[in-house]
Amino acid sequence: MFITFEGIDGSGKSTQAQRLADHLRAAGHDVVLTREPGGSPGAEEIRALVLEGPTDRWSAETELLLFTAARRDHLERTIAPALAAGKVVICDRFVDSTRVYQGLTRGDLRGAVETLHAALIRREADLTFLIDIPAETGLARARARAGAEARFESFGRAMQAEMRAGFLDLARQAPDRIRVIDGDAPPAEVAERVAALAQAALEPRA
Amino acid sequence: MFITFEGIDGSGKSTQAQRLADHLRAAGHDVVLTREPGGSPGAEEIRALVLEGPTDRWSAETELLLFTAARRDHLERTIAPALAAGKVVICDRFVDSTRVYQGLTRGDLRGAVETLHAALIRREADLTFLIDIPAETGLARARARAGAEARFESFGRAMQAEMRAGFLDLARQAPDRIRVIDGDAPPAEVAERVAALAQAALEPRA
Repeated sequence: MFITFEGIDGSGKSTQAQRLADHLRAAGHDVVLTREPGGSPGAEEIRALVLEGPTDRWSAETELLLFTAARRDHLERTIAPALAAGKVVICDRFVDSTRVYQGLTRGDLRGAVETLHAALIRREADLTFLIDIPAETGLARARARAGAEARFESFGRAMQAEMRAGFLDLARQAPDRIRVIDGDAPPAEVAERVAALAQAALEPRA
Repeated sequence: MFITFEGIDGSGKSTQAQRLADHLRAAGHDVVLTREPGGSPGAEEIRALVLEGPTDRWSAETELLLFTAARRDHLERTIAPALAAGKVVICDRFVDSTRVYQGLTRGDLRGAVETLHAALIRREADLTFLIDIPAETGLARARARAGAEARFESFGRAMQAEMRAGFLDLARQAPDRIRVIDGDAPPAEVAERVAALAQAALEPRA
């Protein structure tokens, strides 16, 4: 089973991905916890190329191609082999992030994102948790921990709000796959809701 | 005017691209001589990522995405601005190389190559010189100068022959754009033929 976490920066999705991995491991599942961009040695190198340097280093189009290259490598070398071996794969960000970032906010590339996905990725998550928080909350949290890779977090409140709306729109289009979780609740509560939904989805497969 | 040179490794296309640049400059044209993969600072970084390391470092699919990312950056930052300024751009390899390498010989990705090109590149050369030589000749020349980037030259005679056939097939499909030049002739003769064809193509624009 392939589970992804999505949300704006500072939504707490990385924490929640880690908590779900711990929870499922405690329940006896073989779990691979990974992230994008990155998640395989080659994809991590592409990640460094994309995320470092000034904001205008790459156009939205080039960025889309680089992220898709990283995703293809990650899928081939990490995700697909783990799924084939019967493991649960939990991934912090996947194609929904590209749909929102390059497709809607940084660029207007929705068509190109889907074209590339259909031609070279195809794989969709079985279950996606959208950890939803107000733009202001996310921005405040993201700023508090800003580091070398803060480029994507430097676009301001309007863009965070636009991305949040983009994620919620995706959730409306794919209600069976994407579960919207209130990320403003205490982390332990969020983790409980996520764990319950993941367990329910895993049960018919066990 | 956008002129590209294509051909298998060791065909002499880089030498001929340089000779044509010299010739057109001497005739008073403002010429930008560039190459792929690479040709802009970002694309050169992607080039290093793709060409270094073992042959199986990237799948044909990931390689296609990385080459297309490099091409997009090169097009945006080097080729398009030069063409907009009225310059002649001469490029050593462009999308025909991708059509042949990732599309036919390394991978079977002809459809994906065209999909990516249509979605994110679109630009085609105005005139392409295919410097055609037998696979054995190319291989012998390429081996004589093998260096750190010799990975693409390490695939052997059968692959060189397949690539040559792929390039000739492209030339049959686009006879108005692609001129096949016998690369087995002495370099000075090849250069004269190329220069005459380029001049003829430039004249109606002058």
